Amino acid sequence: MKIALAQLNYHIGNFEQNTFKIIQAIEKAKEQGAELVVFAELSVCGYPPQDFLEFNEFIDLCEQSAQQIKDACKDIACIIGLPTKNSKIEGKDLYNSAYFIHNQEIKAVINKALLPNYDIFDEYRYFEPALKFGCINYKGVKIALTICEDLWNINDNPLYIANPMDELINEAPHLMINIAASPFSYMHDDERVAILSDNCKKYNLPLLYVNQVGSQTEIIFDGGSLAFNEKGELLDEMAYFEEDLKLYEFADGNIIGHVVKQHIPQSDIEQIHHALILGIKDYFKKSGFTKAVLGLSGGIDSALVCALASEALGPENVMAVLMPSEYSTDHSIKDALDLVTNLGCKHEIVAIKEAASAFENMMKPIFKDLPFNIAEENIQARSRAIIVMAMSNKFGYILLNTSNKSECSVGYGTLYGDMAGAIGVIGDVYKTQVYKLCEYINRDKEIIPINSIVKPPSAELRPGQKDSDSLPEYDILDGLLYQYIELKKTSAQIIAMGFDEVLVRRVLKMVNVAEFKRYQTPPILRVSPKAFGMGRRMPIVGKYLS
Amino acid sequence: MKIALAQLNYHIGNFEQNTFKIIQAIEKAKEQGAELVVFAELSVCGYPPQDFLEFNEFIDLCEQSAQQIKDACKDIACIIGLPTKNSKIEGKDLYNSAYFIHNQEIKAVINKALLPNYDIFDEYRYFEPALKFGCINYKGVKIALTICEDLWNINDNPLYIANPMDELINEAPHLMINIAASPFSYMHDDERVAILSDNCKKYNLPLLYVNQVGSQTEIIFDGGSLAFNEKGELLDEMAYFEEDLKLYEFADGNIIGHVVKQHIPQSDIEQIHHALILGIKDYFKKSGFTKAVLGLSGGIDSALVCALASEALGPENVMAVLMPSEYSTDHSIKDALDLVTNLGCKHEIVAIKEAASAFENMMKPIFKDLPFNIAEENIQARSRAIIVMAMSNKFGYILLNTSNKSECSVGYGTLYGDMAGAIGVIGDVYKTQVYKLCEYINRDKEIIPINSIVKPPSAELRPGQKDSDSLPEYDILDGLLYQYIELKKTSAQIIAMGFDEVLVRRVLKMVNVAEFKRYQTPPILRVSPKAFGMGRRMPIVGKYLS
Repeated sequence: MKIALAQLNYHIGNFEQNTFKIIQAIEKAKEQGAELVVFAELSVCGYPPQDFLEFNEFIDLCEQSAQQIKDACKDIACIIGLPTKNSKIEGKDLYNSAYFIHNQEIKAVINKALLPNYDIFDEYRYFEPALKFGCINYKGVKIALTICEDLWNINDNPLYIANPMDELINEAPHLMINIAASPFSYMHDDERVAILSDNCKKYNLPLLYVNQVGSQTEIIFDGGSLAFNEKGELLDEMAYFEEDLKLYEFADGNIIGHVVKQHIPQSDIEQIHHALILGIKDYFKKSGFTKAVLGLSGGIDSALVCALASEALGPENVMAVLMPSEYSTDHSIKDALDLVTNLGCKHEIVAIKEAASAFENMMKPIFKDLPFNIAEENIQARSRAIIVMAMSNKFGYILLNTSNKSECSVGYGTLYGDMAGAIGVIGDVYKTQVYKLCEYINRDKEIIPINSIVKPPSAELRPGQKDSDSLPEYDILDGLLYQYIELKKTSAQIIAMGFDEVLVRRVLKMVNVAEFKRYQTPPILRVSPKAFGMGRRMPIVGKYLS
Repeated sequence: MKIALAQLNYHIGNFEQNTFKIIQAIEKAKEQGAELVVFAELSVCGYPPQDFLEFNEFIDLCEQSAQQIKDACKDIACIIGLPTKNSKIEGKDLYNSAYFIHNQEIKAVINKALLPNYDIFDEYRYFEPALKFGCINYKGVKIALTICEDLWNINDNPLYIANPMDELINEAPHLMINIAASPFSYMHDDERVAILSDNCKKYNLPLLYVNQVGSQTEIIFDGGSLAFNEKGELLDEMAYFEEDLKLYEFADGNIIGHVVKQHIPQSDIEQIHHALILGIKDYFKKSGFTKAVLGLSGGIDSALVCALASEALGPENVMAVLMPSEYSTDHSIKDALDLVTNLGCKHEIVAIKEAASAFENMMKPIFKDLPFNIAEENIQARSRAIIVMAMSNKFGYILLNTSNKSECSVGYGTLYGDMAGAIGVIGDVYKTQVYKLCEYINRDKEIIPINSIVKPPSAELRPGQKDSDSLPEYDILDGLLYQYIELKKTSAQIIAMGFDEVLVRRVLKMVNVAEFKRYQTPPILRVSPKAFGMGRRMPIVGKYLS
């Protein structure tokens, strides 16, 4: 039997487009001789639909789309993912389901049993877990169909007390199919290959796995759909970070026509680079915008975002605004202009002195002779935000936020100033990774000016200011933050690793005190296993470590 | 047996303070002759602790606090709520638990079975549901102890397939005790009384119910702990919106010494008023701040927030900043000054013309002769935010946000402008409710100037601007929004109610398009059953209804 895996880029709630894409892929698969085409988890509505699921109209539109897809399934079978209504009174009103469609009929409905509800996942908010299981029979092949997390309960500390495949295996299936919406992080692809391989070994079955691809606000799906033999050996992997459709032949109890291969991951930095490009691209495309604006300081963070945006949107769609102040160093303008030249993007220069002076005068009767402090520093950062937002309001540019994860962590940034923007491009990228991404972008030629990379980082909000005046060196800071944020180590554990005790307590306190700022920052493209945003939910008035 | 209910105001993660309060209440209850004192759900750490629960150190601190409380339990028993570790490998690592402590020993651990995971609740993110149940035996009284949601699965469309009391009743208990962290909404108290009463009737048992009180960022707990007889008749209710400790006597199978009473709810507006005062008060107290700043326009929204803040923090701690522009009407300054006089709060006047002109000049080479539009309007709103944030940075004032729910819904506000602030005081209060709150505040004398109430609402960002230029009349808008946001009705249902079809489609689209703005707004004090913030999670790049 020829089975096509369709790895598509869906758009949450855009039923017209999703249905069109699915039907188009069915046609394409049929032309290539496929007898079954498999789409990802919640392919009909996109993932994660969040509280759209609480609107009956949304659920009805999912069902209507499924009916259209069903009608298009002539002489081919397909598997699609969608929310369906729970017909029982008890329990939540929805299931996270898959339809098996054949001969223009819905032949089977499979419901997800294991509902992830950690990090960015909220599935138990909406769905009732399945308690009953059954295989699909199609042309003599018995298929154990599961949905994403259903195959992930296989490690040493299982999160769930149930295991759907332990039930399905009793029916002696021939093949496992798993439909997924498994978000990217730079550590996730290896884990995915390992877990799926473990399932093949445990159940002695081959596996076809189809993932979504594309970005939905902050969540990026990297695709990379997979085929394994019954020994858990990898046979094939589909494209990463782009749509793909591939046919696999299942015959004599196995997937034939492929030799065993190794998963050779791209480097973390290369993966992050791809993910951020896709994240920017899809944010604009799915929001219906084309043009970006950002403040370009001459520093490394905004330079990186400008380069990424130019690659994602085309340099002609990127407007870099240089906004020097009296504290800007001479090289800042030069470094920024060099970048603009290298990229070929647009730019404007708007000095902020006039606005800063206006505020200084206006506040004089109140501030009197109080010394220059963070108030005046923030006036500068916020005046810059007014300028780029005015560009946005006047011309329809979308503001890109350029804060990095190190800054976001410790609250080193100005709310309503440099923390503004529609989407945080590098808010999940530590400063030390920012450097590596710049090196990667410069791998063939100097795009990001070397001077932006080598000079000491500075917010340039007062004379001679350097990040290192307020923060530890970034290689130490980032190492410490990673232990606390990604790995959730206790302060005692982090100190035991050799980090200075005073520094550990200071940094952990900075992270916790900055929750109020992060609450109001834009969504951040998620590339790590623990990003700020929907995957990390902390009390603001809490007192723990603060 | 004399049982004390201790209705306390906890602070998330502030173990020192929570433990001190609990031990103090134990002593007080003992002095009054109590043999058992009952504290609320997760009283040891505060509710909701959110992702603090993912840090081992946090869980250890809960356990250490419990040990201190245990040691204080001499000659008295107590029930406290805290997260505990799941000793089994399978399932999530924590339970939402209660300790029954007697003779300085933990005699029983009860785990919560029904884990709410809707609206603001995320309990399944952290906790494994209990599958085993058992009563507590204390001095010959068999107590069926449950935790909050455990008693809420009693309606016609049960959310869970299990029901802990259906298990516990098999042991023939004498008394039900429920410890809760049940957040306020102006519709919630009636529902609470009804559901708890239904449990008494169903199981033919009396019930003592203890709730938290106090505000945790956006979530407000209203207290109102309750006692019922076995017929489900209300015997007593404890204070609303403040701490309380009361003793009840359980004898001869019932709670004695009380006559049956009716729950007579306060009016919605009165409840909302109390809730907002408590919300402001606790935000400042728990964050360690005392002074608030806000922009005072002369309009009704900022007038209301100024009055609420003056009541919550004392007028001497409230700084109102009047920031007129060339589009401000003459009466705006007068109305604002009248309010300041009536309240006795502090004020400053900072005209924004100089800043607005500076930005106009600075943008002139780019904007050229393009007509005045939303860009210039927003420059004004954002210049005001710079001024109040500068006050905040210079003097340590905390900025109060004054956006109402009608504006937040349709995106009628300027991001980084009037949408700025540390806490949204009336972001869950529709404009029509704003008027009623002002009338309530003026019930005895004119505090909020009548002119601020009766004049047509205007953002005053261009000559002669009125809200009604861009929005439908608020009584129509609010009615429509309520159907969509609170009740989640479909557009077809709303139209069928008699709302104009074009208007319905326009408003629903405005609500959905404004998600990107709401993502970056401050936390909003929740007073309704569906507030913006953690209880309403919508995709930003979604395409549904937008």
